[in-house]
Amino acid sequence: MEENVTGQVKEQGQAGERKKLSLLLFSGEYDKALAALILANSAKEMDIEVSIFFTFWGLCLIRDPQKMHMEDKNTYEKMFGLMAPAGPEDLPLSNMNMAGMGKAMLKQMMKDNEAPVLGDFLKGAQNKGINFYACKLAMEVMGLQLDEMLPDVKILTAQEYLRDAMESDVQLFI
Amino acid sequence: MEENVTGQVKEQGQAGERKKLSLLLFSGEYDKALAALILANSAKEMDIEVSIFFTFWGLCLIRDPQKMHMEDKNTYEKMFGLMAPAGPEDLPLSNMNMAGMGKAMLKQMMKDNEAPVLGDFLKGAQNKGINFYACKLAMEVMGLQLDEMLPDVKILTAQEYLRDAMESDVQLFI
Amino acid sequence: MEENVTGQVKEQGQAGERKKLSLLLFSGEYDKALAALILANSAKEMDIEVSIFFTFWGLCLIRDPQKMHMEDKNTYEKMFGLMAPAGPEDLPLSNMNMAGMGKAMLKQMMKDNEAPVLGDFLKGAQNKGINFYACKLAMEVMGLQLDEMLPDVKILTAQEYLRDAMESDVQLFI
Repeated sequence: MEENVTGQVKEQGQAGERKKLSLLLFSGEYDKALAALILANSAKEMDIEVSIFFTFWGLCLIRDPQKMHMEDKNTYEKMFGLMAPAGPEDLPLSNMNMAGMGKAMLKQMMKDNEAPVLGDFLKGAQNKGINFYACKLAMEVMGLQLDEMLPDVKILTAQEYLRDAMESDVQLFI
Repeated sequence: MEENVTGQVKEQGQAGERKKLSLLLFSGEYDKALAALILANSAKEMDIEVSIFFTFWGLCLIRDPQKMHMEDKNTYEKMFGLMAPAGPEDLPLSNMNMAGMGKAMLKQMMKDNEAPVLGDFLKGAQNKGINFYACKLAMEVMGLQLDEMLPDVKILTAQEYLRDAMESDVQLFI
Repeated sequence: MEENVTGQVKEQGQAGERKKLSLLLFSGEYDKALAALILANSAKEMDIEVSIFFTFWGLCLIRDPQKMHMEDKNTYEKMFGLMAPAGPEDLPLSNMNMAGMGKAMLKQMMKDNEAPVLGDFLKGAQNKGINFYACKLAMEVMGLQLDEMLPDVKILTAQEYLRDAMESDVQLFI
């Protein structure tokens, strides 16, 4: 009897806990970002809690192309600001051998299949309440400021990311 | 006493559960596919359950070069079908700086060490009962059809992949 | 009451267990290695146990440039030894579109922000007791020998890596 009770309590506890997905988006490439956002949106539809921690080139995805500015930046940071992709549509493909085929072709193929494109998945993710976190150290090194990013992005340290990841059921480095 | 019993029951429960490895193979590169399949085969030998979810360029690895066809494909899908690698031996290296060294050299070095090559690992994986899953959305976007793939590949949605990954002990994005 | 006791015992058990981070470093690129080592060092400061399993190009990061030798190597292994990067400062950037900007610029931007560079993170990691493991199969295929690597590196098989990863709370493939 005791055992059954314990068993039941445990089961209720598990059913009550929401599952959690933690993505670390390091890469600043169109196709990898697309994969990350398809996973994030699919998970959110299943009522899984989702965090995306953007770092290094991944930060390019959540830059707002309308809000770029040059104040408080040194020479390198200005160069980086201008050279690095700003926003989702500006990202290159990861597959160098498919670069000839091009992003345009991939986007057309997605359109033909009525699949939404990267920008749509990004907006969808924010609307659904997926957590967007920007890596503090990478923001500083690249000279990016919070007012240049999409709205509702929070700054997190690597340790805060790790704490969140430790509590997640699935963690992926993309 | 009660405690010991509970403890024992718990231990039996854990020993009874098979461990599970979930790989998401996004990349269509020879060396990354090799790493994924070495992990998958090693895990299976330890009696760990293994699933590989092939998506995007990773789908190229499980295309059957003998079964490619052009029916029911639009222009872009036909171009993609011809340009994208078909089967394991057709994949490029991931390391652009090592591209000069070449896949041929890596394969020769593996042969010198009596290490099996990618195709062998792939056959081994299927023979051992490793689950091969193809991403539904990526199959559609790339215009690939199930009869163009290796035998025993099943189609899975992103949500079905997530459900499987949530139940796994280790999940890796490769 | 029984329940409370069980509950308490369980809580103590969980508090007593150290959390564990398992990184698989496949890539031999400066920025990815930097991301891996920032995570590893941050985790170690939080008293999380950290293992890094270096395989394929990731092995280049833990080669000691002073200890390279040509004995007991065949022609391919010698060529590989000379062509592949030796040590952290020799690694290229992962982002081919940022290659123009260059590693020099990234390093300068890190210096401007008083962020330590890759070599520092690597030394820090070893000093803090982070476990450095080299993949047995990849060492053999690439003709690398243990006396050519950094001190305190241990050789591990893929199965030993998997056993360690299965016991970890977070596993990432970088």
